[in-house]
Amino acid sequence: MKPHNFSAGPSILPEMVFKQAAAAIENFADTGLSILEVSHRGPQFVEVMHRAQTCVKELLGLTDDFDVMFLTGGASTQFFMTAMNLLGSDQIGYYINTGTWSKKAIKEARAFGNIVELASSEEANFNYIPKPNPIPGNGQFLHITSNNTIFGTQYHKWPETKMPIICDASSDIFSRPMPIDKFGCIYAGAQKNMGPAGTTLVILRKDMLGKTDRAIPTMLDYQTHIDKDSAFNTPPVFPIYVSLLVMEWIKEQGGLGMMQEKNEMKAKILYDAIDASSLFEGTAEQEDRSLMNVTFVCKDPDLTSRFLDVCTEEKISGLKGHRSVGGFRASIYNAMPQTSIQHLVDVMKEFERKS
Amino acid sequence: MKPHNFSAGPSILPEMVFKQAAAAIENFADTGLSILEVSHRGPQFVEVMHRAQTCVKELLGLTDDFDVMFLTGGASTQFFMTAMNLLGSDQIGYYINTGTWSKKAIKEARAFGNIVELASSEEANFNYIPKPNPIPGNGQFLHITSNNTIFGTQYHKWPETKMPIICDASSDIFSRPMPIDKFGCIYAGAQKNMGPAGTTLVILRKDMLGKTDRAIPTMLDYQTHIDKDSAFNTPPVFPIYVSLLVMEWIKEQGGLGMMQEKNEMKAKILYDAIDASSLFEGTAEQEDRSLMNVTFVCKDPDLTSRFLDVCTEEKISGLKGHRSVGGFRASIYNAMPQTSIQHLVDVMKEFERKS
Repeated sequence: MKPHNFSAGPSILPEMVFKQAAAAIENFADTGLSILEVSHRGPQFVEVMHRAQTCVKELLGLTDDFDVMFLTGGASTQFFMTAMNLLGSDQIGYYINTGTWSKKAIKEARAFGNIVELASSEEANFNYIPKPNPIPGNGQFLHITSNNTIFGTQYHKWPETKMPIICDASSDIFSRPMPIDKFGCIYAGAQKNMGPAGTTLVILRKDMLGKTDRAIPTMLDYQTHIDKDSAFNTPPVFPIYVSLLVMEWIKEQGGLGMMQEKNEMKAKILYDAIDASSLFEGTAEQEDRSLMNVTFVCKDPDLTSRFLDVCTEEKISGLKGHRSVGGFRASIYNAMPQTSIQHLVDVMKEFERKS
Repeated sequence: MKPHNFSAGPSILPEMVFKQAAAAIENFADTGLSILEVSHRGPQFVEVMHRAQTCVKELLGLTDDFDVMFLTGGASTQFFMTAMNLLGSDQIGYYINTGTWSKKAIKEARAFGNIVELASSEEANFNYIPKPNPIPGNGQFLHITSNNTIFGTQYHKWPETKMPIICDASSDIFSRPMPIDKFGCIYAGAQKNMGPAGTTLVILRKDMLGKTDRAIPTMLDYQTHIDKDSAFNTPPVFPIYVSLLVMEWIKEQGGLGMMQEKNEMKAKILYDAIDASSLFEGTAEQEDRSLMNVTFVCKDPDLTSRFLDVCTEEKISGLKGHRSVGGFRASIYNAMPQTSIQHLVDVMKEFERKS
């Protein structure tokens, strides 16, 4: 039996996608060739790129005001590319600090403009989402991290601001609908809800560009990739192809509304079990709990490693929490079946009964 | 029957690698999980990264003076990262211009230092490798493109210089041994001789760093990736894994010396056929002909499209030349079997007989 994969990322993807991906390595789109050896300028891959961009637009309901890019370098590269491309040296970018990734975004952006940390939950080890109100309107954008993989928090109410929001959605992209008119830019490393490691989705509202005349290396300039349909140079063919397969799976499942419904149901099973337990407790404030990464600990820390051992025996993989929080983190992305969550809950209950 | 894949890149890889890659998508390293869903911090992938770095060192005979990185963004990103990291604003970087990719490297580097184009073959549509002599010694490095995919030329004699050579070896890495003490940096997009699209190999001699105190974004700083063993952020797991499989295949074949021997033999079959033909002719100067990309044309341009049609019928794929040269380009990388080259030669001869 296959292990239950609760890894935070790279992470579980739909089983069907693995089968389709393996098949394309042997014979891609009836070319007789492997997807690993075909030209990125060939009609079959050009079609993949086009379908992938269209899928992003359909899933999120993007208007033609947005461009869709598939780049590389992860969200870590977007931390500076956003500011480098979208912020003049004397302009203000507001940031809300909700954890490790927000902090890195802030650090990298400082080289390019006037970066203001508007709010932070660092004093409480990032166990909640700060909700500054009112938010000043004199910046070029407000940058947020929609889901905090490490600390298990997530925005359930988007900030009220007239500034365009730049959102690092690496760990909850495509897990729910987004009110797209609030966003100027959404970026996401693929390797959680979208696909395997190796590509980064960047969605950019056209009017975000043109605020700075900074000299930018060709490969770091969004305009390059917009103009060349993400194929200025050789794109990461296979990671983009697998991302397309995942997006098509999401569409078949009913789209982002259905994803949200399922994700809420799946998370509730686990949070209810944690709240009903006398042995485990959640680490994030209730109202900001993530539907993607459920962080919890043993009230008695001495039990932590024993529970992890039991998990290993029960074929539960990737549950160890990040060192910043400790305990456990169950990453339950779109592709995580409810049965695996139920299995984890059963193992938790049995562990509690025996302890 | 599978088509004969003469594509310039992404391009043919060993058949066995496709089988191993497909198998790892279903079950990676006996984890029961797909390689597309495992953590990059898990012991199985950490081992892959370590083996991949070791393979590079073994194949090229690198000493501990060199660091090996697996990055993203292609050679196009290295065009500026090399200068950004290795060249002070007032220092000189010498470049030899042998075609499209050299030109781009020169263009991107200009933002970071005093860039001198030492020689160029542009006046002859890059059909030869210029050999400036003597080469001035007052620069930080000499940058070359070892093989020119588009124009079908390749360095067979490395430049005589005391400066460290920075080499874009994207299209001939691992096709032959390299006299490694001449090089300060070698970089290569994976998608020709090394693996699928999605990762970029960077080999850097330790003493190349520290020449500039320029502020560099974390993700663009070589030191970041050296310090974190190419896993500062999530690396492109699958492209690196497949690159490892290819490198292990090269080792099993007998290493780079054997690769060179086979590549010389394979190229000779095709060049001999071109030279013996009254219908086809090569486009590159004989002494600089590439062993990787054989560029040739029909003396009568009206025959070009007819020959391409015949190739399609004969299951020869990817032979159309780049628009900068026209005609045909047979890319015959490491994994190209001699039988496929013989097939192409047979089709050429039959076409000539009938014309």
